[in-house]
Amino acid sequence: MEETFVPFRGIKSDLHGRLMCYKQDWSSGVKAGFRILAPTTYIFFSSAIPVISFGEQLGRNTDGILTAVQTLASTALCGIIHSIIGGQPLLILGVAEPTVLMYTFMFNFAKDIPDLGPELFLAWTGWVCVWTAILLFLLAILGACSIINRFTRLAGEMFGLLIAMLFMQQAIKGLVDEFCIPQRENPKLTELIPSWRFANGMFALVLSFGLLFTALRSRKARSWRYGSGWLRGFIADYGVPLMVLVWTAISYIPASSIPRGIPRRLFSPNPWSPGAYENWTVIKDMLNVPLLYIIGAFIPATMIAVLYYFDHSVASQLAQQKEFNLRKPPSFHYDLLLLGFMVILCGLLGIPPSNGVIPQSPMHTKSLATLKHQLLRNRLVATARKSMSKNSSLGQLYGSMQEAYHQMQTPLIYQEASARGLKDLKESTIQMASSMGNIDAPVNETVFDVEKEIDDLLPVEVKEQRLSNLLQALMVGGCVAAMPVLKKIPTSVLWGYFAFMAIESLPGNQFWERILLLFTAPSRRFKVLEEYHATFVETVPFRIIATFTVFQSVYLFICFGITWIPIAGVLFPLMIMLLVPVRQYLLPKFFKGAHLQDLDAAEYEESPALPFNLATEGDMVIRALAEGELLDDMITRSRGEIRRTCSSKVTSSTATPANNPKTLQSPRFSEKTYSPRLNELRGDPSPWLGGRGHQSPRTSEGRPSNLGQSPCI
Amino acid sequence: MEETFVPFRGIKSDLHGRLMCYKQDWSSGVKAGFRILAPTTYIFFSSAIPVISFGEQLGRNTDGILTAVQTLASTALCGIIHSIIGGQPLLILGVAEPTVLMYTFMFNFAKDIPDLGPELFLAWTGWVCVWTAILLFLLAILGACSIINRFTRLAGEMFGLLIAMLFMQQAIKGLVDEFCIPQRENPKLTELIPSWRFANGMFALVLSFGLLFTALRSRKARSWRYGSGWLRGFIADYGVPLMVLVWTAISYIPASSIPRGIPRRLFSPNPWSPGAYENWTVIKDMLNVPLLYIIGAFIPATMIAVLYYFDHSVASQLAQQKEFNLRKPPSFHYDLLLLGFMVILCGLLGIPPSNGVIPQSPMHTKSLATLKHQLLRNRLVATARKSMSKNSSLGQLYGSMQEAYHQMQTPLIYQEASARGLKDLKESTIQMASSMGNIDAPVNETVFDVEKEIDDLLPVEVKEQRLSNLLQALMVGGCVAAMPVLKKIPTSVLWGYFAFMAIESLPGNQFWERILLLFTAPSRRFKVLEEYHATFVETVPFRIIATFTVFQSVYLFICFGITWIPIAGVLFPLMIMLLVPVRQYLLPKFFKGAHLQDLDAAEYEESPALPFNLATEGDMVIRALAEGELLDDMITRSRGEIRRTCSSKVTSSTATPANNPKTLQSPRFSEKTYSPRLNELRGDPSPWLGGRGHQSPRTSEGRPSNLGQSPCI
Repeated sequence: MEETFVPFRGIKSDLHGRLMCYKQDWSSGVKAGFRILAPTTYIFFSSAIPVISFGEQLGRNTDGILTAVQTLASTALCGIIHSIIGGQPLLILGVAEPTVLMYTFMFNFAKDIPDLGPELFLAWTGWVCVWTAILLFLLAILGACSIINRFTRLAGEMFGLLIAMLFMQQAIKGLVDEFCIPQRENPKLTELIPSWRFANGMFALVLSFGLLFTALRSRKARSWRYGSGWLRGFIADYGVPLMVLVWTAISYIPASSIPRGIPRRLFSPNPWSPGAYENWTVIKDMLNVPLLYIIGAFIPATMIAVLYYFDHSVASQLAQQKEFNLRKPPSFHYDLLLLGFMVILCGLLGIPPSNGVIPQSPMHTKSLATLKHQLLRNRLVATARKSMSKNSSLGQLYGSMQEAYHQMQTPLIYQEASARGLKDLKESTIQMASSMGNIDAPVNETVFDVEKEIDDLLPVEVKEQRLSNLLQALMVGGCVAAMPVLKKIPTSVLWGYFAFMAIESLPGNQFWERILLLFTAPSRRFKVLEEYHATFVETVPFRIIATFTVFQSVYLFICFGITWIPIAGVLFPLMIMLLVPVRQYLLPKFFKGAHLQDLDAAEYEESPALPFNLATEGDMVIRALAEGELLDDMITRSRGEIRRTCSSKVTSSTATPANNPKTLQSPRFSEKTYSPRLNELRGDPSPWLGGRGHQSPRTSEGRPSNLGQSPCI
Repeated sequence: MEETFVPFRGIKSDLHGRLMCYKQDWSSGVKAGFRILAPTTYIFFSSAIPVISFGEQLGRNTDGILTAVQTLASTALCGIIHSIIGGQPLLILGVAEPTVLMYTFMFNFAKDIPDLGPELFLAWTGWVCVWTAILLFLLAILGACSIINRFTRLAGEMFGLLIAMLFMQQAIKGLVDEFCIPQRENPKLTELIPSWRFANGMFALVLSFGLLFTALRSRKARSWRYGSGWLRGFIADYGVPLMVLVWTAISYIPASSIPRGIPRRLFSPNPWSPGAYENWTVIKDMLNVPLLYIIGAFIPATMIAVLYYFDHSVASQLAQQKEFNLRKPPSFHYDLLLLGFMVILCGLLGIPPSNGVIPQSPMHTKSLATLKHQLLRNRLVATARKSMSKNSSLGQLYGSMQEAYHQMQTPLIYQEASARGLKDLKESTIQMASSMGNIDAPVNETVFDVEKEIDDLLPVEVKEQRLSNLLQALMVGGCVAAMPVLKKIPTSVLWGYFAFMAIESLPGNQFWERILLLFTAPSRRFKVLEEYHATFVETVPFRIIATFTVFQSVYLFICFGITWIPIAGVLFPLMIMLLVPVRQYLLPKFFKGAHLQDLDAAEYEESPALPFNLATEGDMVIRALAEGELLDDMITRSRGEIRRTCSSKVTSSTATPANNPKTLQSPRFSEKTYSPRLNELRGDPSPWLGGRGHQSPRTSEGRPSNLGQSPCI
């Protein structure tokens, strides 16, 4: 993204890009049919459960002025608005922990001021929201989001890990609290005598670990060996909500022999109970706030604005990581503008505003990638089976699959004449087939293991649409009405779910993988390379990786420590924003440019690609060898669930992707057995092809940057 | 083993065979050094914990006349005797559940007889033991064990699974009991009020699942990615006892806030408490037993003799399965004779007798196979590294490894001029190397991943020696003195350990694997084949496998049901013995011979191997192709931990192993990429080579049967 601060340019460009895909955003979602329910329910749960829990926390902190009803209402309202008129429909909105902290701080301030008090608290926060919105408008209009690329992987992943730590912290704190007497409760109650408290704590341990363990297992159901494919798919798609149901049911098993309050369950007023509607008319109280406090509201507003600017942008960025190979354009400026409007709306309604949330937003994208993978896979398996039943040759088989794949591609009017395709030739199969001299002989299931081969062939693609976001927001709205049912969920199941969310957000986070690498036995480090295609393991000396990771970890712990400081805690995003200058000016002093490139590619440091005519005769040989593969640029493969994979990046100075020899550097070619041979064929390995056939250090991962050529890639 | 009923012949042959290895049995154990402690502690725990728990059960059932002190003493005493002068040192002895059931039945009978009563109970059981021993002597002398081969895999594996079910049942029952008021306890105690009982039950769930989960994980530590090799090895070797320690420590964490009796811990008198020595002088009471009851003791004695005959032989058989490639001879008859002497000894001392136990005995062999694997591996890795540092070629490298391997082979005087060796050439490596034209070029770690390659090369071998058995028996003896320490273990940890033992005994049980196969999705059945080398998946139609497995499962559940019948329950081994005629006469009426062969090879049905001259020119080509592999007959490879693997069986009618073309049918050749090519080379695949290069249906698994040529293979 170009860094430009011309007013309105960013918003205009965002609107232009997204309007072109708008119709397709809906039609694509509808076409997915009932399968769209899988990511929808998955995200609905991961969105609703924390919001309910934050609402409960807020209820305790604000003496019940704001409760789970309000946080759910805000999440649903903003979610519906954003999914319909928002820019980036992959982004999930919700009331987040920082918002809860800010509102707690503001309540503690307002309740002791005679001119405000608890009565005018919501009216005053209304003014805070107005100021916040004005600041957000300014940021959006002036193009503040165009510096989003300066938030490199370093900042984004550290923020992701920080949120995971906060979730895990909440899970542990919640579990420990199950052994204690809750605030606002009468300690004389039967269920609070020491023996029942201990029993409650132990029961909570069983329920939360049970949920955590089974939920984690169920996500991997697709690769289970047992059960029919239908059942495995169902469990993988709906296992997590199912497990919440199952463990809630289990919590009722010993009901007859224990007092009513064990295990502890969700606490929230019903939306129809008296008083629950008071806050909706806050707008008429706003003029009663003294002028001094209307102006003073600007101070918390700046903090919230900074927070939202960062939080919203990073959530949006993480939901649209390069590895997902998204084809529709991002929309940072317009989304920030819209967020401003939603903040005003929430302020006037007296509910806490929502913003883009982590880890739900990247989880949403991942689940849509799984959906797309399933849709493509089913279609291709059917095509392959049909083709094989006609006794076609391997060549014909791949041809028909290629065709089916292209039919599945969204016919976007704005899409360039696509140079993409299936990774059409699978070397090992082809090699075997050709050594048997029967590339034209009919294939059968023995030689060609359809399901496995297709899993290997498929690139990471995402079902980009608005339907799942809208549906999950509507379901969150439904939760407000379903409060009596939700209250049956034990709090311990929630803590297990928090831990589940923290753990689910880790895979794919390269920072996390590097931390694990520090503890990996030297002889097994190559496995990291194999599993995550983490090129840096080969190109950067381990000592440098370790230093970089330790620095990052120390920084992370400082940020985490800051969240523990009572009021300043909400400013932890500032620490992450501070990473931008640290990364740009400080780190290059300590690390070599090439190493930094591999560990944390920043666009502003990108070195220009070598022009195409550098290709030597050696390359010609390879090109001829892999002729069938020349189309597969930008396409990576997924292994079962979505993993970060490398794809070569085409910079605009090179020729068209189809002519680029870098297409050879697919992960497949990094397999050990092929690389020495390849290098031998090439004669003299030039540095930009990578010593062992891996991705070259100069090519960064991901989404192509030839945005200049067409608005929608 | 030949079926012969000439008196004493079996015992003589056993003694002859074992005496030849006797010295080596000790020297080999001593040479293993401190590493022998790993299998020793592993087996010590799996032997001591159930014995303690059975002792507690016996204590409740006999009003405290027999307790854990007596069961431990019997296990230690018999274990020491057996490990020193027993025939088969892999067999683990202990007081087993059936013995506990029999003693309970006898106590209930004796206590109500005025002439006996609790006072003469032990004296009477002394007579029962005398009769039992006489019956065992007769069985041993007359060669009853020579029909052991009629206990086919069907019977042995069903018995193994039945024991696993009983262990699991005990774990579940124990856990449920944690929620209830225990017998003999005052229900007015603080820890038995409903709230603390519930808390105790929940705590027990946490502790037992914690132990089960971590113990199962720790066994796989060797393949972890994190931590140094030393740490991983240590955790894999000592993880289970370590976890018992850890979870016992965890059970003390909330000690300050809960009453003393929570969680419940082991209950057993100290061996030095008054009255604990009463039973040791039982011999002087034996003449006080009325003659009628001395003769009447013959009735329970027959039941116990049948039970011990079966239990001891099957445990011995499972500890010496063909898959382990044992080199020293078995000793069924002599061991049964020795068991008779030990039964008399225990009877006269007034302690319940021990016999060979499942699953500890096969667990012992498995852990010794892991030990041998480690020893071989370390030596070979060192050799390979040394060789590589000298820049030797791939050929030289394998040569030096081959030599080191042969040096590690026990120099048994009675061993045939060994035709065995390392699976010397690894096709994929060689293939790659030769395609690069550099088979003689120096190898380096990049091409040759030492540790991984060696893991793949190593055959399953067992460190056959007496030291681990002696040491574990001594440690069990030490437990009697360490009773005050043992009493700190929570009972819930024991239940977790029971579940762990049940689960640990499952892998390698083909019956279990077939049950799982029934639930495996059709498209993934091939994975069973890949993972367990379960040839029957390819050679027997799935419908037949399913029918056979369902029949076996129904039979298993009938046996399991019988154990629930109060007194007849102890006769469940009779049901398993009934399988011998069922297998021999009934099953062949319902299943095809070839299918039965593959599912449950019985020696009496073995079809003669086809003579060698059937080899066609096609085979010659393959032989030339795999020249380097011709020595590796009978050698299978293990994958990390020990798994059941197939090795071709050489029947005496074929030529020497080195000339047998079946050597080509190593699991490696079953890999998909090679098989089609192989079949093509062969031209016309003859049925006995297996349609897809897998093991042929006619070759059964395991240990070579050319026992006739030399006494010790």
